Amino acid sequence: MEETFVPFRGIKKDLKGRLLCYKQDWAGGIRAGIRILAPTTYIFFASAIPVISFGEQLERDTEGSLTAVQTLASTALCGIIHSIVGGQPLLILGVAEPTVLMYTFMFKFAKDQKDLGQHLFLAWTGWVCVWTALLLILLSVLGACSLINRFTRVAGELFGLLIAMLFMQQAIKGVVEEFGIPKSEDPNQPAFQPSWLFGNGMFALVLSFGLLITGLKSRKARSWRYGTGWFRGFIADYGVPVMVVVWTAVSYIPVNDVPKGIPRRLFSPNPWSPGAYTNWTVAKEMLNVPPVYIVGAFIPATMIAVLYYFDHSVASQLAQQEEFNLKKPSSYHYDLLLLGFLTLLCGLIGIPPANGVIPQSPMHTKSLATLKHQLLRRKLVDTARKSINNNSSLSELYEDMQQAYNGMQTPLVYQNPSSLGLKELKDSTIQQASNTGYINAPVDETIFDVDKDVDDLLHVEVKEQRLSNVLQALMVGGCLAAMPLLKKIPTSVLWGYFAFMAIESLPGNQFWERILLLFTAPSRRYKVLEENHATFVETVPFKTVAAFTLFQTAYLLACFGITWIPIAGVLFPLLIMLLVPARQYLLPKFFKGAHLQDLDAAEYEEATATRYNMAFGDDDAHLRTPQLDSAEVLDGIITRSRGEIRHTSSPKVTSLNQTPKEDMKPMYSPRLTQRVYSPHLNDSRVDTWPKSPGEGIGFKRTPSPRPSILGQTSNGSSPC
Amino acid sequence: MEETFVPFRGIKKDLKGRLLCYKQDWAGGIRAGIRILAPTTYIFFASAIPVISFGEQLERDTEGSLTAVQTLASTALCGIIHSIVGGQPLLILGVAEPTVLMYTFMFKFAKDQKDLGQHLFLAWTGWVCVWTALLLILLSVLGACSLINRFTRVAGELFGLLIAMLFMQQAIKGVVEEFGIPKSEDPNQPAFQPSWLFGNGMFALVLSFGLLITGLKSRKARSWRYGTGWFRGFIADYGVPVMVVVWTAVSYIPVNDVPKGIPRRLFSPNPWSPGAYTNWTVAKEMLNVPPVYIVGAFIPATMIAVLYYFDHSVASQLAQQEEFNLKKPSSYHYDLLLLGFLTLLCGLIGIPPANGVIPQSPMHTKSLATLKHQLLRRKLVDTARKSINNNSSLSELYEDMQQAYNGMQTPLVYQNPSSLGLKELKDSTIQQASNTGYINAPVDETIFDVDKDVDDLLHVEVKEQRLSNVLQALMVGGCLAAMPLLKKIPTSVLWGYFAFMAIESLPGNQFWERILLLFTAPSRRYKVLEENHATFVETVPFKTVAAFTLFQTAYLLACFGITWIPIAGVLFPLLIMLLVPARQYLLPKFFKGAHLQDLDAAEYEEATATRYNMAFGDDDAHLRTPQLDSAEVLDGIITRSRGEIRHTSSPKVTSLNQTPKEDMKPMYSPRLTQRVYSPHLNDSRVDTWPKSPGEGIGFKRTPSPRPSILGQTSNGSSPC
Repeated sequence: MEETFVPFRGIKKDLKGRLLCYKQDWAGGIRAGIRILAPTTYIFFASAIPVISFGEQLERDTEGSLTAVQTLASTALCGIIHSIVGGQPLLILGVAEPTVLMYTFMFKFAKDQKDLGQHLFLAWTGWVCVWTALLLILLSVLGACSLINRFTRVAGELFGLLIAMLFMQQAIKGVVEEFGIPKSEDPNQPAFQPSWLFGNGMFALVLSFGLLITGLKSRKARSWRYGTGWFRGFIADYGVPVMVVVWTAVSYIPVNDVPKGIPRRLFSPNPWSPGAYTNWTVAKEMLNVPPVYIVGAFIPATMIAVLYYFDHSVASQLAQQEEFNLKKPSSYHYDLLLLGFLTLLCGLIGIPPANGVIPQSPMHTKSLATLKHQLLRRKLVDTARKSINNNSSLSELYEDMQQAYNGMQTPLVYQNPSSLGLKELKDSTIQQASNTGYINAPVDETIFDVDKDVDDLLHVEVKEQRLSNVLQALMVGGCLAAMPLLKKIPTSVLWGYFAFMAIESLPGNQFWERILLLFTAPSRRYKVLEENHATFVETVPFKTVAAFTLFQTAYLLACFGITWIPIAGVLFPLLIMLLVPARQYLLPKFFKGAHLQDLDAAEYEEATATRYNMAFGDDDAHLRTPQLDSAEVLDGIITRSRGEIRHTSSPKVTSLNQTPKEDMKPMYSPRLTQRVYSPHLNDSRVDTWPKSPGEGIGFKRTPSPRPSILGQTSNGSSPC
Repeated sequence: MEETFVPFRGIKKDLKGRLLCYKQDWAGGIRAGIRILAPTTYIFFASAIPVISFGEQLERDTEGSLTAVQTLASTALCGIIHSIVGGQPLLILGVAEPTVLMYTFMFKFAKDQKDLGQHLFLAWTGWVCVWTALLLILLSVLGACSLINRFTRVAGELFGLLIAMLFMQQAIKGVVEEFGIPKSEDPNQPAFQPSWLFGNGMFALVLSFGLLITGLKSRKARSWRYGTGWFRGFIADYGVPVMVVVWTAVSYIPVNDVPKGIPRRLFSPNPWSPGAYTNWTVAKEMLNVPPVYIVGAFIPATMIAVLYYFDHSVASQLAQQEEFNLKKPSSYHYDLLLLGFLTLLCGLIGIPPANGVIPQSPMHTKSLATLKHQLLRRKLVDTARKSINNNSSLSELYEDMQQAYNGMQTPLVYQNPSSLGLKELKDSTIQQASNTGYINAPVDETIFDVDKDVDDLLHVEVKEQRLSNVLQALMVGGCLAAMPLLKKIPTSVLWGYFAFMAIESLPGNQFWERILLLFTAPSRRYKVLEENHATFVETVPFKTVAAFTLFQTAYLLACFGITWIPIAGVLFPLLIMLLVPARQYLLPKFFKGAHLQDLDAAEYEEATATRYNMAFGDDDAHLRTPQLDSAEVLDGIITRSRGEIRHTSSPKVTSLNQTPKEDMKPMYSPRLTQRVYSPHLNDSRVDTWPKSPGEGIGFKRTPSPRPSILGQTSNGSSPC
C-alpha cells in the first residue's frame, strides 16, 4: 500500500477492490453450506461473551445507564452493517474494553457536573460520538490509514499480546472476586455468608478451570485417535460452545441446600424490562446539553478517535496477516470511514460504539482457514478417488486435482497474479512412482494415499466471505431475545472463557513464540526447528533474537503497567503507536538491517533484490512430471507449510545476500540445521543422507536458496 | 520354569539363584549413588499413601482396634525383612485392600461372638495368621508356585486393570464423600454445616484434580522444552512427591473464616498416643481364645492363604515381565515361604500382614528401568565424548562404548547367556559414515550426535538391586515418627493420588492398549503402528483382537462386580484364578493358536520352531563394521524399542509360519504396514522408498523375518 494523502484516493481504491469481489463474498459463503456454522458459532461466542461481561461492568460503573443490552445491541448493529456494507468482512466489530473504560470515565465526569448529571450523560456522549465520527471521517478521507504500513509485526503482535494479558487479567480477577462479596450487593444475603462465599469461590475454580481445560482440549479434537471422524470434527468445530453448555449444566448439579446465587450467574436486565430502552430516544435530548459541554466533548472525542483509528486498523491488519495468503484486497480507508458513520449512529441512539476487536478478528480468519482447508480437502479427495477408479496415472491424477482445485478458485480480476496453486506431489510418491515405472501406469492407493497425501498438497487458504460475519452479528443480536437463557451461564464459566480466549490468541504470534524460545533449554532448541517455524529462527543469531524480544517485552510491560493508571489507561494505544517511530528510527541503530527484516519485516526497508537463480540440475528433470510447470514448483519451494510465503525477490534473500559471511552464526550446530533442511522430513532422524551435494534424495527436488547459504557457514566436515 | 512338585526343589533353586547375585544386589544399589533416591521416593509415596488410607479405613471399621499405625508398621516391617532376606527385591510388600476387607469381616464376626468380642479380636486374628502361615509354607514347600507359568498375560493384566479400577473407584468415592458428613463424626461441628460441606467438597475437587493433573504432567517433565536439564530431571523424578507437598501447602491458603476441619486431613493416632500400642503384646492373649475358635480360624485362613498365594505371585510376576529384560532370576517359591513366616510374625504382634502389592511392584521395576537408562546413558555419553576427543573412528567409538557398556554389566554366573548388548549404531550414522569414507576417519559430533544417538543404542534394562526396596520400607517406617507431619496432608490430595496411581499403572498393560484400540477410529489405527506397539497389532486380525478383548472386558467387569458383594468380594482373586483353566482349555476352542500366542503367549503352548534363516545379502556386508558380530545385529533386529523381545526361535515366528497364508489378514493396508517396517523411521512420511526388495535404503540393514512374511499378504502392486 502506497503512502498517499490525496483526499479520497484510499477510499476509492478500497471500494473499487472490494466491489469487484462483493458478489463472490456472498456466493462463496453460501456455497460453503452448513459448514459455515462452525466458524460462525466459534466467533459468535468469542464475540458475545466478552460483550456481555463488559455490559455487566458498564452497568455497575454507570449505575445502570448502560447495560449488557446496549453493548449487545451495539455489537450486533455495527456487526450487521459492517458485514454487509463494510470493506473487509474478516474484521469483527464489538464493544471493546477501552470503550468501556472511556464511557466509565465520561460517566464519572458527567455525574459530577450539575449542568449534566446522570440524566444528560447519554446525551453528552452523543455529542462525543458526533465529534469522534467527524474526526474518524476526516482521518479516513485524508488517507491516514496508509500509515498502516508503518505498523509492523512488532507493534501488532505487541498489541495482540497485551490484549491477551488483559483478558487473562480479567479472568484471574473474576475468579478471585468470586470469593468476595460483589460491591453493589447486599452483604446480608445468605449466599454472602463466609461459608457460602468460600464454596462459591471453590465452585468458580472448578467451573472456570473445567471450561478452560476442556475447551483447549476440544480444539485439538481433530487429531484425537478415538471416535469417528464426524464426532472429532464436530468437537473441534463446536467444542467450545458445547463446553459452555456442559459446564453451565454442571453448575446446576448442586441443588440441595445451596442458596440462590451460588454459583453466580450472568446478570443483565431483559431488553423488554422497564428502563432498559430509555436510551434509544437520546437524540431528542442532545439539544438540552449546554453548549460549553458540546464543545468540551471534543476532548474525549480526540482520545476515542485515536483509539479507534489504531484499534480498528490493527485488528484489520492482524486479521489479514501475510501467513493467511489472502486473495482479496484490504480496505482500511473505507472501513475507517464506515466506522465514523457507525459511531455517529451509536451516539445518536445512546449506545456505546463498536470497533474492530482483537483477538476475535484474527480468530475469525484462522477459523475460516480451517473451513477452507476442509472444503478443499473434501473436493480433492473426491477427485482423487474418482481418478483412481478411472485408472488414471499419477500425472493424470495430479492434473485432475489441479483442475478441481482451480475450479474452487473464483477467477477474480483483483486476484493476486502470483496466487498459490497446489503444492507439488511429495518426494516419496513421485520417487516411488518413477522407481517402479508407475508414473504413467494406473495409480492405486498404495502410491497415492488419498486421505493422507492430499493434506500435503494444500497451502493455507482462507474462505473469505461475508456470511460468517453477518451470521455471527445476527446471533449476537439474537442474544437480546435469548437473554433469559444467557443469564443461566455462571460468571465463572465466563472467566474460564476469558482465559481460553487469551490462550487461543497466542499461537502464531511470533512475539510469543520468541518469548517461549528464550525459555527453551539450549539443548532442546532443535525441536523448534523440527516443527514449522518462522524465518528468524534460522537466520538471526540467538543473542539478537533475545535482545529484540527483551526490548519488546519491556515495552509490553510498560504498556500493561499504563493500563493500571486510571485515566492514562485509556491511552495505552498511544504508547503502542510510539513503537512505530521507535521501530523506524531507533531499532535500526541497535540491530542489523538483515536481522530486523527477518524479525519484523517492514515494507519501507525493502530493497529490490536480484532474482535468485532457480536453475534445476539435469538430474532432477525426470522427477518432475510434464504437467508441473516451474512456477508451481517455485511455489512449492517458497511456501512454508505454516503459510509464510517466501517471495523469491523477497527481502529475506536480499538481506542474507547483504550480510557478510562472518555475521551468519546460526543458532544451532550445522548438523542440526542441515537435518531440518532435508525438505519434507519432519523427523529428525534423516536416514537418507545425501551422497554428495545435489545428489542425495533429500535435496533432490528442492534446490532452495537457503541450504546453499547455510552451507557457507557449516564447518566443512559435514558431508555436503 | 518347569512344573515340579517335588518338595523343597523350587525353594532350593530360588535360593541358589538369588544367593549368587546377593552381593551384587547391594553393591549395585550402592554404586548407583544418590540417584537411587528417585525410584525410592517414588515408590515410598506409592506405598505409604494407600497404606495410610487403608489404616484410616480399618480404624473406622474395627472401632479403633487397628489404625494406620499398625498398617504402616506392618508394611515397614515386612518390607524391610523381605528386601533384606527375601528373594525378588523388585517385589514391594504392603497391607493391601483385600487384607483390609478380610480384617473388617473378621472384626464383625468376632465382635458378635460373646466368647471373643472386640477384646479377643486381635488374638483370634493371630490364630488366623498362624493357620495362614502354615498353609503358605505348605504351598511353598510343595512347589505350588511353579503353576505361575499358567498365569499368562491375560490373567495378570486383568488383575492389574482390576486393581486400577479399584483405586479409581476409591478416588471417586473419596471425593464424593468430601461433600458429606463422615460417619463417625459429630454432625453438629461448624465444618459440617451444609454451606461448609459444599465448600469442603468443592475444595476437595480442586485439590484432587490439581494433584492428579500436575502429577501426571510432572512425570513427562523429561521431554519438556523449557527449563534446564537438571530441573527437568528433578521434576520427572520427584515431581509427584513435590506435588503432594505443593498441594498440601495450597490447602493451607484459605485461613480466614474457614473453620477447623476444612479441608479434611489424614487422621491417625500418633504411635505414641495411649492405646495405640496395645496390639504389640497380643501373643500373650492368644491362649485365651476358646479352642473352637482356634480351629474355626482355619476357615478364614484358607481364604487369606489363597488370596496371598495369588496376589503375591502375580505382583512378583508383573514386576518381572518379559519386557523389562531382567537378568537376575525369579524367586516365587522362596518368597512365598518367607511370606508365610512374615504372616506368622504379623499375627503374633497383632498387626495385619503385608503381601506383594499391585501396582506398586511393577511401578518399582519401571522406575528402576528409568534409573538404569540414566546411568548407562551418562556412562556412554562420557565414553563417546572421550572417544571423539581422542579422534577415534566411528568403529573405535563403538568399540569403546561397547566396552564401557560391558563394564556396567556385572559378569554373573546366572546371567542369561543371550543377554542383550548395545544395539547397533543406527542406519543413518553408519550409512553416512560409509558413504563419506568416515568409517575409519575421526568421528565428530556431526556424524555421531552424542546426546541424541546414545539413546538409540540402549535397550530397556532394569537396575536390579535391594537398596531402593529397603530404603522405601525404612521411609514407610519413618512415617510412624513423622505422623504429625503426615496428618497435614488433606484427604482430597490422597484421592487425587489414588487416581494418579490408577492412571500410572495403565501404560504398558496390553489389555488396556487393546481396549483403547477398540475405540480408535479405523482411519487412525495407523498411528498405533507408527509408535511402539505389541506384536499382535500386526499379526492378529482386528476382529480377533476385538473378540478377545471383549471377552476379557466382560470377565473384568464380572470380577469388578464381585468386589461389590460384601463377603464374596474378598474372593475375587478366585474368579481371576478361574481364568487360568479358561485360558488353557476354553480359549483355544475359539481362537487360533497363532493368534492366542501373539495376544497372550503361554509357555505350555510353545512349539519348537525352525530357526529363521538370517542370512544377509552380500550387498549388506559393507554396511556392517567388522566390530559388530552378527549376534549383535540379531539383537538389534529382534528387540523392539519398547523392550519386547522377539527370540528368533520364538513362538511368534513359529506361529506365523504355521498360519496358512489366507488367514493372515493384517489389520491395515499393506502400504501402511510396510511404511512402519522401514526401520528407525518413526515418521510416517517415508521418503526413501526402496527401489526393489532388499535394495532400498529403508530395508538395507535389517532383513527381519517380518517384512517377508507380510510381503506374502501384500496385494502385489506394492513395490516390494
